[in-house]
Amino acid sequence: MADYRAPRDDMDFVLHDVFNVAADWQQAAELAEMMDVDTATAILDEAAKVAENLVAPLSRQADEQGIRFDNGDVTTPDGFKENFKQLAEGGWVGVTANPEFGGMGLPKALSAQYEEMLCSADIAFSLYPGLTSGAIMTLDLHASEELKQQYLPKMAAGEWTGTMCLTEPHAGTDLGIIKSKAVPNDDGSYAISGTKIFITGGEHDLADNIVHLVLAKLPDAPAGTKGISLFVVPKILPNEDGSLGERNALSCGSVEHKMGIHASATCVMNFDGAKGWLVGEPHRGLPAMFTMMNYERLGVGIQGLGAAERSYQNALEYAKDRIQGRGAKATRNDAAEADSILVHGDVRRMLLTMKALTEGGRAFSTWVGQQLDRAKYASDAKVREKADAMVALLTPVAKAFLTDTGLESTIHGQQVFGGHGYVREWGQEQLVRDTRIAQIYEGTNGIQALDLLGRKVCGSQGQLLQPFMEELSGFVAEIAQHNRWNTERAQLQQAMDALQGVSAEVLQKAGTDENIISSVAVEYLHLVGYVSYAYLWLRMAVVAEQRQAEKPYLAAKIKTAKFYFARILPRVHALVASIKDGSESLYLHDDNEF
Amino acid sequence: MADYRAPRDDMDFVLHDVFNVAADWQQAAELAEMMDVDTATAILDEAAKVAENLVAPLSRQADEQGIRFDNGDVTTPDGFKENFKQLAEGGWVGVTANPEFGGMGLPKALSAQYEEMLCSADIAFSLYPGLTSGAIMTLDLHASEELKQQYLPKMAAGEWTGTMCLTEPHAGTDLGIIKSKAVPNDDGSYAISGTKIFITGGEHDLADNIVHLVLAKLPDAPAGTKGISLFVVPKILPNEDGSLGERNALSCGSVEHKMGIHASATCVMNFDGAKGWLVGEPHRGLPAMFTMMNYERLGVGIQGLGAAERSYQNALEYAKDRIQGRGAKATRNDAAEADSILVHGDVRRMLLTMKALTEGGRAFSTWVGQQLDRAKYASDAKVREKADAMVALLTPVAKAFLTDTGLESTIHGQQVFGGHGYVREWGQEQLVRDTRIAQIYEGTNGIQALDLLGRKVCGSQGQLLQPFMEELSGFVAEIAQHNRWNTERAQLQQAMDALQGVSAEVLQKAGTDENIISSVAVEYLHLVGYVSYAYLWLRMAVVAEQRQAEKPYLAAKIKTAKFYFARILPRVHALVASIKDGSESLYLHDDNEF
Repeated sequence: MADYRAPRDDMDFVLHDVFNVAADWQQAAELAEMMDVDTATAILDEAAKVAENLVAPLSRQADEQGIRFDNGDVTTPDGFKENFKQLAEGGWVGVTANPEFGGMGLPKALSAQYEEMLCSADIAFSLYPGLTSGAIMTLDLHASEELKQQYLPKMAAGEWTGTMCLTEPHAGTDLGIIKSKAVPNDDGSYAISGTKIFITGGEHDLADNIVHLVLAKLPDAPAGTKGISLFVVPKILPNEDGSLGERNALSCGSVEHKMGIHASATCVMNFDGAKGWLVGEPHRGLPAMFTMMNYERLGVGIQGLGAAERSYQNALEYAKDRIQGRGAKATRNDAAEADSILVHGDVRRMLLTMKALTEGGRAFSTWVGQQLDRAKYASDAKVREKADAMVALLTPVAKAFLTDTGLESTIHGQQVFGGHGYVREWGQEQLVRDTRIAQIYEGTNGIQALDLLGRKVCGSQGQLLQPFMEELSGFVAEIAQHNRWNTERAQLQQAMDALQGVSAEVLQKAGTDENIISSVAVEYLHLVGYVSYAYLWLRMAVVAEQRQAEKPYLAAKIKTAKFYFARILPRVHALVASIKDGSESLYLHDDNEF
Repeated sequence: MADYRAPRDDMDFVLHDVFNVAADWQQAAELAEMMDVDTATAILDEAAKVAENLVAPLSRQADEQGIRFDNGDVTTPDGFKENFKQLAEGGWVGVTANPEFGGMGLPKALSAQYEEMLCSADIAFSLYPGLTSGAIMTLDLHASEELKQQYLPKMAAGEWTGTMCLTEPHAGTDLGIIKSKAVPNDDGSYAISGTKIFITGGEHDLADNIVHLVLAKLPDAPAGTKGISLFVVPKILPNEDGSLGERNALSCGSVEHKMGIHASATCVMNFDGAKGWLVGEPHRGLPAMFTMMNYERLGVGIQGLGAAERSYQNALEYAKDRIQGRGAKATRNDAAEADSILVHGDVRRMLLTMKALTEGGRAFSTWVGQQLDRAKYASDAKVREKADAMVALLTPVAKAFLTDTGLESTIHGQQVFGGHGYVREWGQEQLVRDTRIAQIYEGTNGIQALDLLGRKVCGSQGQLLQPFMEELSGFVAEIAQHNRWNTERAQLQQAMDALQGVSAEVLQKAGTDENIISSVAVEYLHLVGYVSYAYLWLRMAVVAEQRQAEKPYLAAKIKTAKFYFARILPRVHALVASIKDGSESLYLHDDNEF
């Protein structure tokens, strides 16, 4: 596999030239003194070194070796322990954690770049710190001060890691029917019993303790999703002084053998009256879990983005080196026996598709990160409110669209390699296998689409779409004044109109057709994704034109924008036609006619 | 994984109700006495048993075990040896081989069904007999009578297997630059030297001998593809009496570790002055190899089809069993805690997409098989000529479109399983891994697209498209008379017009734009694929309406046809727009701007 090189120039371009995130930081009390462009640059340069030099070199070997399970214990691949220790010592496990507990407290727009680099380097490894960040955030938002003091400093320091224990054998998407129980003990703690499956990092040898966040039902719990409570259940019970005490009554029963992320332990966790403490209100565990979901879902989306970037880098290096066949006269190197395959239109099509989806994806994840930061930090309540709406709308798109296009990009990359893409030693097929899970976990992409179209768009009677449409319309009006990029502007406007049109149509049909939303949700989410990327590509192109004199590499950005409008955006035509068809053709078949 | 059940009803429907292949057989001297509907039914029923009971049950375990390489020897997974022996004894290795040499001599329309079943059961296993069939056909068409007598009876009986040795480390797509050498020996044989890679079944323990068909260059060979000769090079040299003699100077140097088809040995083969015999004319090895390509490429396409069918069956069973979430009021089972996920629109969308692509694919592969049979057997020269043209046009589509939609179907199937789709024990992720190679080998799908648009459509100045368009137009005109399926007929006509339009446009641009063909070829191939499926779906729907009274299960066929037109065919809108854009946006970037 080609050495990974973090796309630092493009990250800086997106952060500062396109989104000017430092201006937001200046207006946020908690960030103004801590963050500026230079600090951000220094942090990301360091992060790039971690990803390039520490994490990436182990990825291939760790995939081959996988984790080892032996009688309840999990051994991670060679080098993971040392690497995780270095990561922790560098403060990278607590990168988004509250500084009050020793975290770096980075804004999301910035930590999104770090996460992308880590995922490009090795998705499987990235899950250990990634899940820990999520658990930290959940505890920080919902746990009692005592629990926070007990857990967060250790977790932010990477001495303890975290998990999320939601899924049970019979209940994944539908958490309302979970069976795990929590019975009150006399000392204010609870006895947790039940089996959880698909628990990432449920057991491993990277840290001194593992802190499980577990969904379970109290004895008096109402049925369904309104009867689920959240508990913190450590693998080893901490003593009052913070030292480690007895082993808790929980164990890893087995690990899954999976298509990919072989170096990540996916565990069956058995809780046998394990001691746990309530986090937040009784029966309010699901909302507590969901407060972190916007962050986590963007994080899973970024796995797709990271893999796509890596796929592109590998395929590009291979395409430049591989001499095979002849290009058209103008591109032919007559002195050589054959030309680099980069001369062939179809190879260029695959590479540019990856490039357009990846750079578009980076802009998208950063944009969503900026909205998350505004929603959290902005001093102006109206700014926070608008950002909240944008986050609600765009989070499911980030999770699903970045991973769907991520898989597409890893497959294109593999295809560029020909037969070598199918052979393990090149690492390209690993990217396909490792990325595939991101479309499934943390809520399948189908569930994301339902969230977008059902809960968000139709649930708000279309209101939640408006800040998004206004931002795009404002941009279109602005560049129209300068009479620039007229063709692409018209294409964007047309796609926006189509989105507005089908949104109204679905909303109207939803009044009488119970099946409409789940019937067109995935295509609808993709439509929002392609329209968003069109907006972002045009916005990047306009900025690139302005900055090109100082940054000559931005010439490529303008060209890739043209490619996006010419060859990728047309996909919306198919999506719109399919959405307009509605639910009818999906409900003709009786069950026995499938 | 669900038990595999061969879709025998649908195969019979396609073969007899839709394509009436028996009528063709009656008009073919070589088939008239041998084949009729009853015989075909009996053969396919037996084939189904082989696939269901012999091959399918080993697939999962064989994937886990993989092949073992030890000092030049390859051990196949447990049970493969016994299964291959049974397959051979049943005549299934020589299923398409010439009866003169002991083969079954099945027409392709029929053997295509057998191949589909075998691929649904286990792609990796299917490659051992599959490659042997290809080698048999090549020898039968091009080798001397002496070589045929020496090799074909053993191969048709499955005692010896065959390989195709084309690719070298530096030369895959571009065979003109291979380096393997053939130097004449005094006895009329040749000494073959060189290294071949990616050789499927290059070494294994299933048969007494392995017959390699090797491309190499004679000392006086002209440069490029016109200087390549074909040789038969056995692993063990046969004695005059047919018994096995000395080991030839060739060996398996190593095997590839791959994403999938773990049970198939993908070998590096070293030829060190190995004894070989010329097949066909000197320097005419590539055309000889290509005469079998139309059969082989359809065969690889059928791997995608077989995997898609299996994926659909697995996902459907899982969807019916999995209780999760709630459907709309009309579909809700209030007595249960939750509903089967089959009630959800998005699950239905994934299942019906698989169903529409798979049944459409089966019709397509059978249609191409029928054309191959007509080209070979038809007594009327005009029929043969038209069929030849159809085969030339449709073969690259069959290879690429069946495998591209095959991968799509395996990914949908995996998604229906949620997290369980990512776990190896369910077998669903194996289908994704095993299918992926079919888009790459036997000429990548990008190469197939170049063949279609470059050599076939543009190379014939569009002439080769005409018999295809005429067949579709004739059908549209016919059903228009009866005023049936008006909406779908209009959609098909529109798609045909679009195909005709972009074909003319590309042809015209090709006069001045050297890059146009490779820039739009993949989208063009997909366009031809979707138009073909639209034709076939409408044709199947019309027949299904006629036969529904006797075969009530055909009601589903009519419904799936509606789904295809409503939700799949709209993809052509995106393809047409992308093709119309041409090559410009692909050639803006300098090499260093990627």
